[in-house]
Amino acid sequence: MNAKLITLTTDFGLRDAYVAAMKGAILSRAPEVRIVDVTHEIPPGETASAAYVLRQAAGFFPTGTVHLVVVDPGVGSERRAIACECGPHLYVAPDNGVLTAVLHANPPVRTHLISRHELWRKEPSPVFHGRDIFGPVAAHLASGGRLDDVGEAIDPDTLLRLPWPEPRLEGDEWTGAVIYVDRFGNLVTNLPLEAGAVLAGTVEIGGRCFTLARTYSDVRKGELVALRGSSGLLEIACNGGSAAGVLGASAGHVVTFRVHRRS
Amino acid sequence: MNAKLITLTTDFGLRDAYVAAMKGAILSRAPEVRIVDVTHEIPPGETASAAYVLRQAAGFFPTGTVHLVVVDPGVGSERRAIACECGPHLYVAPDNGVLTAVLHANPPVRTHLISRHELWRKEPSPVFHGRDIFGPVAAHLASGGRLDDVGEAIDPDTLLRLPWPEPRLEGDEWTGAVIYVDRFGNLVTNLPLEAGAVLAGTVEIGGRCFTLARTYSDVRKGELVALRGSSGLLEIACNGGSAAGVLGASAGHVVTFRVHRRS
Amino acid sequence: MNAKLITLTTDFGLRDAYVAAMKGAILSRAPEVRIVDVTHEIPPGETASAAYVLRQAAGFFPTGTVHLVVVDPGVGSERRAIACECGPHLYVAPDNGVLTAVLHANPPVRTHLISRHELWRKEPSPVFHGRDIFGPVAAHLASGGRLDDVGEAIDPDTLLRLPWPEPRLEGDEWTGAVIYVDRFGNLVTNLPLEAGAVLAGTVEIGGRCFTLARTYSDVRKGELVALRGSSGLLEIACNGGSAAGVLGASAGHVVTFRVHRRS
Repeated sequence: MNAKLITLTTDFGLRDAYVAAMKGAILSRAPEVRIVDVTHEIPPGETASAAYVLRQAAGFFPTGTVHLVVVDPGVGSERRAIACECGPHLYVAPDNGVLTAVLHANPPVRTHLISRHELWRKEPSPVFHGRDIFGPVAAHLASGGRLDDVGEAIDPDTLLRLPWPEPRLEGDEWTGAVIYVDRFGNLVTNLPLEAGAVLAGTVEIGGRCFTLARTYSDVRKGELVALRGSSGLLEIACNGGSAAGVLGASAGHVVTFRVHRRS
Repeated sequence: MNAKLITLTTDFGLRDAYVAAMKGAILSRAPEVRIVDVTHEIPPGETASAAYVLRQAAGFFPTGTVHLVVVDPGVGSERRAIACECGPHLYVAPDNGVLTAVLHANPPVRTHLISRHELWRKEPSPVFHGRDIFGPVAAHLASGGRLDDVGEAIDPDTLLRLPWPEPRLEGDEWTGAVIYVDRFGNLVTNLPLEAGAVLAGTVEIGGRCFTLARTYSDVRKGELVALRGSSGLLEIACNGGSAAGVLGASAGHVVTFRVHRRS
Repeated sequence: MNAKLITLTTDFGLRDAYVAAMKGAILSRAPEVRIVDVTHEIPPGETASAAYVLRQAAGFFPTGTVHLVVVDPGVGSERRAIACECGPHLYVAPDNGVLTAVLHANPPVRTHLISRHELWRKEPSPVFHGRDIFGPVAAHLASGGRLDDVGEAIDPDTLLRLPWPEPRLEGDEWTGAVIYVDRFGNLVTNLPLEAGAVLAGTVEIGGRCFTLARTYSDVRKGELVALRGSSGLLEIACNGGSAAGVLGASAGHVVTFRVHRRS
C-alpha cells in the first residue's frame, strides 16, 4: 500500500491560519493524502531545533512518507528549495539546514531542486512558499508524482548542513553537550548509547554526578537521573520534575560520561 | 470527488476535551468525513479574530469543504445559528459576525437557519452547541446532506456583520489600520495590494517610514520591512524579529501607504 | 462500518517529536487507522486530569473507537499496562488511574494485561512505551485485532483507581468540590445535575451565592453564573470572563448546592 502520508514540521504556530492554508493547498492538489503534524511549535526561524525534532519523528513513519519542513526565515530569498529521497522517505524543505540531522543519519540518494513552476500555485507569494510551493510539491510526491518532475537533479553534497556537535572520547570519558530540552525539562545530549548493551557509567553535568539508570522512576521523586533516552541518546531527567529547571541547564551545556570498566 | 472535508475554527483551546467531543460527535454522524483544524486558539469570544483567521484559511480548501466556526459567546441565547453557501464552500456558524470577512469576499448565495432539531444530538446542552448542534449539522452537510434540511431559508442580508475597517484614499495616500498580529509579530493591515503589480511606495507606522519590499530578507536582520503579505494585504514585519514588539503596535494602529508615482 | 479510530490523550505537549513518533508507530502498524487527538496538554504526569478529560471526550466517539491514554510517570517501572473493553469502546493505558472516571461510568467487561511482546516494537525503550508498546497495541485493536492477543485476562477489579471525590447530601444541600478548571476559567464541579429536569437552586462558592441559570448569557457580562455544564455537572462560569480568576478558585474548592423546594 502506498503511504500517501505527509508530515508537517513548521514554526507557524497554532493560532494563525498558516497551517490550515497550507493543508488546504495540499488537499486541493491531493485530496486522498493524509496529513500528520510533527509540530508547528518550532521557535520562529530556529532551523537547528527543526532539524533535531524532525529527526526524532521521521524514522517512525511508513516507507514512502513525505516529510515537509517549513522553517524558512529566508523565504523568497536566493536560498534553494529542495526535495530529496533519503532512506525510505522523501523530504521537501528549504535548503537551509533543517535536514541536517536526517542527512547525518541517512545519506540522500537523490536530490532535486524545486524549480518547475508547473507544480506550484499560480503567482506564489514571496513570503509563503509553504502554501504556494512546498505544499503543492509535497502533495505531488505523496500522490505518487515523480521526484524528477519537481526540478533538476543536484549533488546531495551541496546541501547546506548546520554545524552538528560531535561528542569527543578521551580515555574512557566522553564529552558531549545538551542539544535539546523537551517539554518535560529532559536534557537530551549528543552522546549516543547503544541499545541493549549492558551500560554502566557516571554522568556529570553542572557539577552533579550520577550513575546511569534505566528509567525515570529508578530514582526517587525529585531526583536527577541519567538514562538512555527514547532516541538512543544520553538524557538527563528529573523524576516527576524538570532537569532543566533543577540544573539551570539548556542547549550547549557540557556533559561528560565516564564508562565504567568491569573489573 | 466530493471533498467531505470539515474545517474547525474555535476558541476551545487544546487542553480541554471540547474539541475532541465535537470531533467525536461529527464522526459519529459521518464516519467518512475528514476534519482539518484551522485553529482552536482564537482568544475566548473574539469573533473579529475568528472572522479574520477563517478568511485567511478558507479559500485554500477544495470545493465543497464545510467550514465550521464555533466562537460563540452567546451560546444558548437568542442569537441565531446559520448555515450558508458562499463561494465554493459551505459555512456553519453562530450568526454573531464570525463570517464577516468571508461574506465580505463572497456574497452568500443561500442562507438557512439551523432550526430542524432532527439533525441535532438529543437534548442539546445550552452551553455546547458546537458538539450538539453545529457539529452534527456540519457532518450532515459534509456527507452530502441538503442545505434545505437544516432549517428555513433566510435573507443573507440579515446576517450579522461586524464593523470591518475600510482603508481611505486621499490624493495618493492610503490610510488604513493594523487588523491582526500573527505569531511572528507581523502586523497585517487592511490595505490590499494587487498581486503581480509593480508596486512602489512608502509606508508609515508609529513615526517610522520605509519603502515597500518583496520579502523579509530584503532588509537586514532586526530591521523593519513593509511588504505584500501572503493574503494580499500590506504587512509590516521585522526580519528575524517581531514588528509588533519593535513598534509596540497592535490591532487598531494607523498605517499610511503613499504610492510612488513613476516620473 | 468498523470505526478504526484511535484517540490520543497524553502529556507529551505539542512542541517535541513524541506525539508524531507515536502516530508514526501506529500508522506503520495500521495504515488505515484514523487518529484523533483528545489532548496532548495534560500537565506532565497529572493522571487525575487525564482521567477527567478522557471521560469528557470518550463517550462522543463511535462504537469501536480505541482510546489510547499515555500519561505515564511510572513508564518502565513495575506498573502494569492494560487494555480493556468498557462500554462501547476499547481503552489502552498504563494501570495508574488514568481510566478512573471512565471505569466509574462504565464497568469494564474484559480487561487484559499488555504482556505479549509480539505486538510491540522491537527493543522497546523503557522511557517511551507510548511509541513502542501502547501505540502498536492500540493499532492492533483498532485494525480489528483481538483483545485476547495483547496478553492474559485479569480481574477488572484489580485496576488502580484514583480517589474520586463524591458529593455529599445533607438535608436538601449538596456539598461537592471543583474538580477541573477549563481554558475559559469555568469551574467544573463533581455535582451531577439531571438533564432536562426543571432545576432550581442556590449555589455557593467562596462566599458568593447565585441561583442556577441555563446558559452563560443569562447574566450580564462579567457576572458569575452557575449552570448545568456540557458534561452534566454543575459548573460555575463568568459571562465573558474567567470564574477561576474572579473567585481565585481552583480544583478542590468546596461548592454547595441547595435545591429549591417548590412550595
